[in-house]
Amino acid sequence: MSMLPLLAMDLEGVLVPEIWIAVAERTGIPALRRTTRDEPDYDKLMRGRLRILDEHRITLPDIQAVIATLDPLPGAAEFLRELRARMPVIILSDTFQQFAQPLLAKLDWPTLWCHSLVIDGKQRIVDYRLRLPDQKRRSVEALRSLHFRVCAVGDSYNDTTMLAAADDGILYRPSAAVARDFPQFAVVNDYHALRARIDEFCALNA
Amino acid sequence: MSMLPLLAMDLEGVLVPEIWIAVAERTGIPALRRTTRDEPDYDKLMRGRLRILDEHRITLPDIQAVIATLDPLPGAAEFLRELRARMPVIILSDTFQQFAQPLLAKLDWPTLWCHSLVIDGKQRIVDYRLRLPDQKRRSVEALRSLHFRVCAVGDSYNDTTMLAAADDGILYRPSAAVARDFPQFAVVNDYHALRARIDEFCALNA
Repeated sequence: MSMLPLLAMDLEGVLVPEIWIAVAERTGIPALRRTTRDEPDYDKLMRGRLRILDEHRITLPDIQAVIATLDPLPGAAEFLRELRARMPVIILSDTFQQFAQPLLAKLDWPTLWCHSLVIDGKQRIVDYRLRLPDQKRRSVEALRSLHFRVCAVGDSYNDTTMLAAADDGILYRPSAAVARDFPQFAVVNDYHALRARIDEFCALNA
Repeated sequence: MSMLPLLAMDLEGVLVPEIWIAVAERTGIPALRRTTRDEPDYDKLMRGRLRILDEHRITLPDIQAVIATLDPLPGAAEFLRELRARMPVIILSDTFQQFAQPLLAKLDWPTLWCHSLVIDGKQRIVDYRLRLPDQKRRSVEALRSLHFRVCAVGDSYNDTTMLAAADDGILYRPSAAVARDFPQFAVVNDYHALRARIDEFCALNA
């Protein structure tokens, strides 16, 4: 038997823009700018977001219209395509299926594991459903139990448990706060450097 | 919390031709035609294949040249693309990374979990390394533990444990022997019917 390398990557901030920040900008509601970079408690963050949406009568189609105008980060599509030709890639994100679809299309449909929103008859987002608490860490653990050597890449507080669970954990353009709180992880700031680090990981594995 | 649907699919016989049968045809060695459809013991099957390759001095580049001439089954690329826009898809195959690459390129790089070959300095295939014994079943079990509702699709003996482990197991164009030995699984014979069955699975999940 032999382990094979697998890449587990975050989505927002690593391959695509932060969706909520884009929604905040288009809607002119600055409170929606908070992300997991700022608020480590995800449920607190999401409850706040849903309350703000409700107050401003913003529906799922409103947010989807914003997301449809977004593009992957410059170079992200090419970077990801090249990696997918070398090893299995699983994108682990705490976003929601209903939000991710237009961005996945622009990335040639990589495999995404995420969560889902509960929508009412008036297309309002009334709740969210985590598929699994701490899914990023638990997914990396499950992948390792299937004999993958896992390289994990993320930028935020909610990525740090998966980075710790992986064979190699890399912070990609983290906030200063995340980099300071998790000095044990390598930090890279562009796709070229990230690719070099992943190459090293695969070479060790060979 | 809520489970989300995920599709686990076999590769050869479901999305692409049986690679070893194609190699048998091009090399004119009928003994290479045996597949998991005929021989349930995978190690016995692979040891026999490697012995035959060695006797005929067939190297990895010889086989890769054959694989490069193959195309996905008619309609497979479109079928798979459509499904990947709806849910995560993991291809679970007992093939080898070194064989799969040209066919994955023609399927827009879906996520494949498989095994690897050991190649010597003369490009001879000297051994194979299973990443994990019974990886199809164990992968489906791990995916379910991550709160995915798994629909599994395969055609051969080596798919039947994953079909049994899944929330729904479907045989796609199985041999008469497989269909007879596993009457508990639904049988479908074209992508249209397979798609309808997967739609049913997703509707139940919603």
